[in-house]
Amino acid sequence: MKIFGDLQSGNCLKVKFVADFLELPYDWQDVDITQGGTRIDSFLRINPHGQVPVVQFDDGRTLAQSNAIIRYLARGSTLLPEDPFNQAKADEWLFWEQYSHEPYIAVCRFHMHYLNRPKETREAWRVERGEAALSSMDCHLSGRDWISGDDFSIADIALYAYTRLAHEGGFDLGSKSGINAWLERCARKLDVSPQQ
Amino acid sequence: MKIFGDLQSGNCLKVKFVADFLELPYDWQDVDITQGGTRIDSFLRINPHGQVPVVQFDDGRTLAQSNAIIRYLARGSTLLPEDPFNQAKADEWLFWEQYSHEPYIAVCRFHMHYLNRPKETREAWRVERGEAALSSMDCHLSGRDWISGDDFSIADIALYAYTRLAHEGGFDLGSKSGINAWLERCARKLDVSPQQ
Repeated sequence: MKIFGDLQSGNCLKVKFVADFLELPYDWQDVDITQGGTRIDSFLRINPHGQVPVVQFDDGRTLAQSNAIIRYLARGSTLLPEDPFNQAKADEWLFWEQYSHEPYIAVCRFHMHYLNRPKETREAWRVERGEAALSSMDCHLSGRDWISGDDFSIADIALYAYTRLAHEGGFDLGSKSGINAWLERCARKLDVSPQQ
Repeated sequence: MKIFGDLQSGNCLKVKFVADFLELPYDWQDVDITQGGTRIDSFLRINPHGQVPVVQFDDGRTLAQSNAIIRYLARGSTLLPEDPFNQAKADEWLFWEQYSHEPYIAVCRFHMHYLNRPKETREAWRVERGEAALSSMDCHLSGRDWISGDDFSIADIALYAYTRLAHEGGFDLGSKSGINAWLERCARKLDVSPQQ
């Protein structure tokens, strides 16, 4: 399997985290988003939507969308619950992440970290919704170890990817004890250094 | 099963379309978004994120996020392919819809249809991304009948919900022959009048 991605992108790291956790062999193909690597013809043939991550399996078939990829890779492992309803509850968080978390947390980080713009120039409505998403997560994680169900799952990995980088988008997790304890639990599971 | 939703919302209609297509019995509970129906305590107990649609099963368990709900309801039916890779390809479109289509097409429609604001006051970047999403869909649908795989599936229903209402957000589908032919195919499958 080839994983096309940018190691600066949380969405791409989700796929790496899952592949590493499950010890799936892969060949990482670096695509530099900032240098237009997703807009060239050879990449658009792999993903016409021009987005990373995308994986290409040994038979040539391709799959895009970070959360669709990790859900597929996690089949039959501890990262995806067996029970259909529990799977659906994990899906609920995957969709919430892409709609109510990533467009605020990751986009503010893109603004500051990739474009090198000052914190004060973030769009106010994005900051407000990002804060709301983090508060909602912090509340959810108070008194429970994992995002969905009783075990570490793809729902944790999907939300870990950008929550751990929220400070790079100007968000302060200092008072969010539920999130901080959970970030540490995820880092231990994934064998990722908190600073990595 | 109770479905909590607003019949003006494409995200809620996805759930109704799937339930009707599969002839699943349900009790529709109207929640008026514009009147703050998702912000009251009795609703927040069902979905702490304050979003519709949400379903409550007869055993009391709840499930939110339109695409997580329709994926769960479609298990074992023709709407969700049996093969895991084909399921993942449908998932790819469900995530694309929530990230690259709905925030532009549905939010522009909300602006004009719910808030009654003029077309000219839509945010330019949202319009541009909405146009890009529709062009991408139109290109994808040229020479194929359905969004993912060879059959009508939840990927079609997820994208049908707001694409059919795109004109209410100021988008012109006039020249998009691939989309228009597909909208008619979907309407026939779902027994929905084009004007409904």
